[in-house]
Amino acid sequence: MMVQKLNFHNLVYNKLTRSFIVANKDSLLSLKQLGIDTHKEAVIFMRKDCYICRSEGFEVPSRVKVSLKDRHILATLNTIESEILGSGEASLSTYAWELLQASDGDIINLSHPRPLQSLSFVRSKVYGNELKLHETEKIIKDIAKGRYSDINISTFLTACAGGRLNDQEIKHLIHSMIDVGKTLSWKSDMVVDKHCVGGVPGNRTTLLVVPIVTAFGMTMPKTSSRAITSPAGTADTMEVLAPVNLSLKEMQCVVEKENGCIVWGGSVSLSPADDILIRVQGIMDLDSEGQLIASVLSKKIAAGSTHIVIDIPVGPKAKVRSINSANKISNLFKNAAYSFGVKLEVLISDGIQPIGRGIGPSLEANDILNILQNKKGAPEDLKNHALELAGKVLEFSTEIKSGQGKQIASKILSDGTAWKKFQSICEAQGGLKEPKIAPFKYDVLATKDGCINSINNRQISKIARLAGAPQDKSAGVLLQASLGSLVERGQPLFTIYAESKGELNYAISMIENGQEAINIGECE
Amino acid sequence: MMVQKLNFHNLVYNKLTRSFIVANKDSLLSLKQLGIDTHKEAVIFMRKDCYICRSEGFEVPSRVKVSLKDRHILATLNTIESEILGSGEASLSTYAWELLQASDGDIINLSHPRPLQSLSFVRSKVYGNELKLHETEKIIKDIAKGRYSDINISTFLTACAGGRLNDQEIKHLIHSMIDVGKTLSWKSDMVVDKHCVGGVPGNRTTLLVVPIVTAFGMTMPKTSSRAITSPAGTADTMEVLAPVNLSLKEMQCVVEKENGCIVWGGSVSLSPADDILIRVQGIMDLDSEGQLIASVLSKKIAAGSTHIVIDIPVGPKAKVRSINSANKISNLFKNAAYSFGVKLEVLISDGIQPIGRGIGPSLEANDILNILQNKKGAPEDLKNHALELAGKVLEFSTEIKSGQGKQIASKILSDGTAWKKFQSICEAQGGLKEPKIAPFKYDVLATKDGCINSINNRQISKIARLAGAPQDKSAGVLLQASLGSLVERGQPLFTIYAESKGELNYAISMIENGQEAINIGECE
Repeated sequence: MMVQKLNFHNLVYNKLTRSFIVANKDSLLSLKQLGIDTHKEAVIFMRKDCYICRSEGFEVPSRVKVSLKDRHILATLNTIESEILGSGEASLSTYAWELLQASDGDIINLSHPRPLQSLSFVRSKVYGNELKLHETEKIIKDIAKGRYSDINISTFLTACAGGRLNDQEIKHLIHSMIDVGKTLSWKSDMVVDKHCVGGVPGNRTTLLVVPIVTAFGMTMPKTSSRAITSPAGTADTMEVLAPVNLSLKEMQCVVEKENGCIVWGGSVSLSPADDILIRVQGIMDLDSEGQLIASVLSKKIAAGSTHIVIDIPVGPKAKVRSINSANKISNLFKNAAYSFGVKLEVLISDGIQPIGRGIGPSLEANDILNILQNKKGAPEDLKNHALELAGKVLEFSTEIKSGQGKQIASKILSDGTAWKKFQSICEAQGGLKEPKIAPFKYDVLATKDGCINSINNRQISKIARLAGAPQDKSAGVLLQASLGSLVERGQPLFTIYAESKGELNYAISMIENGQEAINIGECE
Repeated sequence: MMVQKLNFHNLVYNKLTRSFIVANKDSLLSLKQLGIDTHKEAVIFMRKDCYICRSEGFEVPSRVKVSLKDRHILATLNTIESEILGSGEASLSTYAWELLQASDGDIINLSHPRPLQSLSFVRSKVYGNELKLHETEKIIKDIAKGRYSDINISTFLTACAGGRLNDQEIKHLIHSMIDVGKTLSWKSDMVVDKHCVGGVPGNRTTLLVVPIVTAFGMTMPKTSSRAITSPAGTADTMEVLAPVNLSLKEMQCVVEKENGCIVWGGSVSLSPADDILIRVQGIMDLDSEGQLIASVLSKKIAAGSTHIVIDIPVGPKAKVRSINSANKISNLFKNAAYSFGVKLEVLISDGIQPIGRGIGPSLEANDILNILQNKKGAPEDLKNHALELAGKVLEFSTEIKSGQGKQIASKILSDGTAWKKFQSICEAQGGLKEPKIAPFKYDVLATKDGCINSINNRQISKIARLAGAPQDKSAGVLLQASLGSLVERGQPLFTIYAESKGELNYAISMIENGQEAINIGECE
């Protein structure tokens, strides 16, 4: 039994017993790739009968220090009782592989970690003390380096939630978050951006605001995200029309030429700590105003923005549910931005969000093209909301009086200047593309006469995903009737688009199974 | 490609298209056992390219509802990008297998879970509101049923830490924790127990207190734990002397006959929610007084205790570091106990804990036997601490005046009554056994003359574990010199015992590698 255990162990000469003995100073195991993704938590997988667990007293979920050459990480132990790991082997979660820059077969050394000093600052915050700048810096640094378990992160976020961060602490947090990531800088003195707090899928205002304000001459280097759980992210939709996977250098070229861009932000790590925090926060389902403000502003400031419009939709189903809350958040945003020399305006908007007609990258891109090209039937609500936002941004200009921004934005859109600008940006990013039309489609018909009482966004999103979005760019759902409108039996409510017959059937089957996406009721 | 996806899917007749289509109402996968232990967090492992992830928008670390027949659990998603899972397969963490009572090959159904209502109570607590009884009950019930992720639990614990639970909330917590577990009842009106807050390995006072107070006639049905990360738990040490794996019925028989017992508590689930909470709390490294009190009292009250002595060691390296803190905790304990009709006394003791001489089950059992048999060289500090505790317990009796308990305990011990009682208890539990002596041993010698300045408990524990404890009952470390004593070069400091030569060498090698367990310095 001992013979098996001796793999990878050094023999050391024992002066007292005058014999060679096994050195356990090094607790070594060989790495095996299992491809287990635990998100941003470093996990080490070891056999339950592993001699190191026994000698070191490691037990699930102990925190273990994993060393490879001169690199060290902290990982949470999970044990394995099957033959997916052999004797003398260990595995890591994908995040831990990355952090440790490890390769299959690498020999790792395991030991007890020293307690993280920054966790004592977290404890201090739990006990109600104010976080000092150097404390916040250390916490955020450790989080960005992947040293916190999800449990540690949850403790930190909870201790900061419920209004427990004051203005000063929020500023420290923004400062610390910017500090651990990259920052961008631009030639222009004024760099504008906009952000929506708690947006809904289909609300692609970015693709309208950028061409309008850059056509006016403002600088707006916009980075957007891809879909995580929705049928399309802004970057996915833009990708239908132009390449978005630009390097930082390529992005800078586009902005120099066109004043703006719409690219995928994933290649630029602007706030790596925030990327970790927001995912844990999603699981906690806990809104912390301080964290929200730090999350948004750290990314915008790191991206070099000097003038920012924050859109806060208010409504019974929106993230912010009352005008009072919106005003409170608005003040926190303004205070924090001010201390970083950033000008910030807030648009409090109606929480019944415009979603356009299309759900899915190509269908949403079509909505955008219809608006930019001033086509009949273009979704009015999406257009109007984009003009409100663009107007607010334009009012940062000394040339535009307060209250006139929307009017000017509207002119830039209606006279075709925005469309021209959009084409130029797409060309600069690598060429404008025509959105493809999916080969398979299916109309979902009204089963009775009546009024459309409700549209279940979640069901619509699910149907679009089942149809293939966002991987299949042209897949998704096109709404054929709007909320509150009258429909007759047999009239199409929405059309499902898919790139394969199988996926189309997949999406259809959901409706067949009685899941109602659009509810038709009595007219009042 | 779609053909592969269709495993396990029902075909449903589509009335509109007049064809059979795939029903996605059921998102089904086949279970495969991988033996991954994530502790008390239910985790589901799915292939990253799984069609359900795509259609449902599941992303690591989404919470997923897993259904098997009429049973449902919530699990955290981890994805796998290797061939340890085949197409159409999923796996669960060991805890999730248990919760779901699943078997290899079972077909599970996956869906989006509805938000847990009790998490809104947790959020309310985060925002500073007092938890009402029905809210705490719902939270604890969901935790006991395994419905909270570690992140959720951490949020709850953090929201309650830092003195944020008032007396009323602590009572609610105790009540709720008792409610979700089993409770025991005894014939005697007075059932005594004792508990030490933050004890150290080797401190086996239980094996002395039980025979003393039961010899006096008190009822003390003691359940103890096995080692998790230490070289021995109380149950491990007792097992050297008598069987401890008794069923509840057997335990009741022993208590009826002998007034007391010392058995392993693992077979009785007295506070299942607490078992989950304490492990997460360990990772958080956050002491919450409210949780501590609820944890201890819920278990004691569920076990039927009516009179409890709490031992609070105070010292610079103990869990409680000042007399003030000890007094504060003492009051919280007394208030909470009072409202459950339980009498509770506190012993504030010196935090430099007696550890006896032996570390490891048999060696610790030998210490106990030496004390019970009044042998010369028995560890005085351990004996004295046990007498203090037994004395406090005895003073619950109306027959004993305050301040006289220790004296009476001492008499019961010195006249052999306790030893006789201990033998009877062991016989009732299945028969007294002689502790084995390990066949291999090695003396670690002083390398110079001097005074013993410090004994590193952690290193000593590690050596004992490397030597085989607690699995090998007779393995461990026997201290040959005590703190503050004079030693000469070549004099034994401690002896390592092991059941195999390999394990002995294993333990020795640690000393050879320069890790100092006992520090010899200048004498003052």
